[in-house]
Amino acid sequence: MRGLGTRTILYQQNVAASLGMYNNDLISVDILNETGPITAGELSKLTGLATGSVTALIDRLEKIGYVRRQNDPSDRRRVIIVPEYESKEEISNTYLPLHAAMINLVSSYTPEELALITEFLGKAGSVLEDQIEQLSSTTRGKTSS
Amino acid sequence: MRGLGTRTILYQQNVAASLGMYNNDLISVDILNETGPITAGELSKLTGLATGSVTALIDRLEKIGYVRRQNDPSDRRRVIIVPEYESKEEISNTYLPLHAAMINLVSSYTPEELALITEFLGKAGSVLEDQIEQLSSTTRGKTSS
Repeated sequence: MRGLGTRTILYQQNVAASLGMYNNDLISVDILNETGPITAGELSKLTGLATGSVTALIDRLEKIGYVRRQNDPSDRRRVIIVPEYESKEEISNTYLPLHAAMINLVSSYTPEELALITEFLGKAGSVLEDQIEQLSSTTRGKTSS
Repeated sequence: MRGLGTRTILYQQNVAASLGMYNNDLISVDILNETGPITAGELSKLTGLATGSVTALIDRLEKIGYVRRQNDPSDRRRVIIVPEYESKEEISNTYLPLHAAMINLVSSYTPEELALITEFLGKAGSVLEDQIEQLSSTTRGKTSS
């Protein structure tokens, strides 16, 4: 689990480098892709980045067309960040070899085995989510800003 | 898998922040912990960081006692980086709640199920390792340095 974690991080860093992006920028588009449109404040909370850093990050992503800001249709005073990520060919091309290799790996398992593995991965994800929340509240408690 | 990946990265960033460390410094001690003693050049290759950055990183880690440089006993002209990581209480304390939660998760599966999951995670790790190697050679090809 720990070895896989380290490799996941290194893989993501290599993807970011090959796209000429900052790590946090790529992580943010991944998060947005999963959550759908959210506010800058919500993105700041999810990434653990300061609000000012998130503003600059969204500026950069908007400039290269990976996200756009728009008024929330359900509350026009709120601005939400909309991912435009999946449509970007350079990103899907970069992930393509990983997808192909993962599909190849997955095809060697039965549907029952895959159901078990998927359930485990989902639960491990929830465990990590809880841990992130606990850690980030501890870290916020320690710093004054 | 992708959701778990994003959470893994965010968890690691939060651990680094709570320890007051740079992300790459924490990733490097995790790598060293897995590989055992390696040279600065090997660490540079594994992390994808430039040699100069790795030198500064090892300086920082040596200063806080997370690694030490020593002559390779099998080739005294080589300097290797030895992890001193596991003995650090602040690190093991930080990972403790995650370990406890993971042991709790794992205890709900049978040994046969866990064998299957462990095998899958190992294979997924190898897939990522191949992808990292391919990506980093592509990136190196693109940049002149």
